[in-house]
Amino acid sequence: METSRRDIATMMALGAAGMAMPGTADAAAGKDGKGGQPTLVHHVFFWLNNAGSQADRDALIAGLWTLKAIPVIRNLQVGVPAPTEQRDVVDASYDVSELMYFDNAADQKIYQDHPIHQAFVAKCQHLWKRVVVYDMLVTPPAA
Amino acid sequence: METSRRDIATMMALGAAGMAMPGTADAAAGKDGKGGQPTLVHHVFFWLNNAGSQADRDALIAGLWTLKAIPVIRNLQVGVPAPTEQRDVVDASYDVSELMYFDNAADQKIYQDHPIHQAFVAKCQHLWKRVVVYDMLVTPPAA
Repeated sequence: METSRRDIATMMALGAAGMAMPGTADAAAGKDGKGGQPTLVHHVFFWLNNAGSQADRDALIAGLWTLKAIPVIRNLQVGVPAPTEQRDVVDASYDVSELMYFDNAADQKIYQDHPIHQAFVAKCQHLWKRVVVYDMLVTPPAA
Repeated sequence: METSRRDIATMMALGAAGMAMPGTADAAAGKDGKGGQPTLVHHVFFWLNNAGSQADRDALIAGLWTLKAIPVIRNLQVGVPAPTEQRDVVDASYDVSELMYFDNAADQKIYQDHPIHQAFVAKCQHLWKRVVVYDMLVTPPAA
């Protein structure tokens, strides 16, 4: 087979973009040049001041997408409560959520201090009344 | 280039397995045969009855990995609180977390009712005192 390493890398990136999860192309392509597996999940939930405002929700979602330009983010997903079964343990009271992957906690700190993130906070923080963050270290299955 | 479509599909699957996020191979390969992008994130946080017990934590983690056999799960990650900066908005009080992707809310319901999930709950529910679930519908970036 004549396929070069570069071709394979390109295919992998295209493949992830076409078939895998949203944003996985960046992770598969090793956007930051490290190429390892991201191990840190940063999941943030926002409750709006004006919970019923579609305009405020859209403004926050648009603001969150600006974060995609921060290089240490390996994967960014933005979402809203899903139409799953209402159960006591399910918290569907939030308005908007962002889910990010980083290689490690150091990269998450770089993101936290990045000017694009700071600009997002300055521009959008009036929209929310409550934020809850969960940072999860992904653990491999036991051998 | 002599590469066939089958070769490309194989490379994409291998690429995701080797370089992307844990478990992404299943998503990239379209494990369930649908091939679309999963849009539902199911993120669960557990607080143990015996928060200091490594044995209980390991038992819960082992139980969570048994869920991987449920076909509708497109991606499963298991984790613990990450060593990120302590800030007021960060909730690092939980002990164990699971993060799953499904194609849609219907598949999440299939998972919820699946015998392997029911067996996990029956076997492990004595370990936890509190569970919080967030179901997030992934929204695409605005055009």
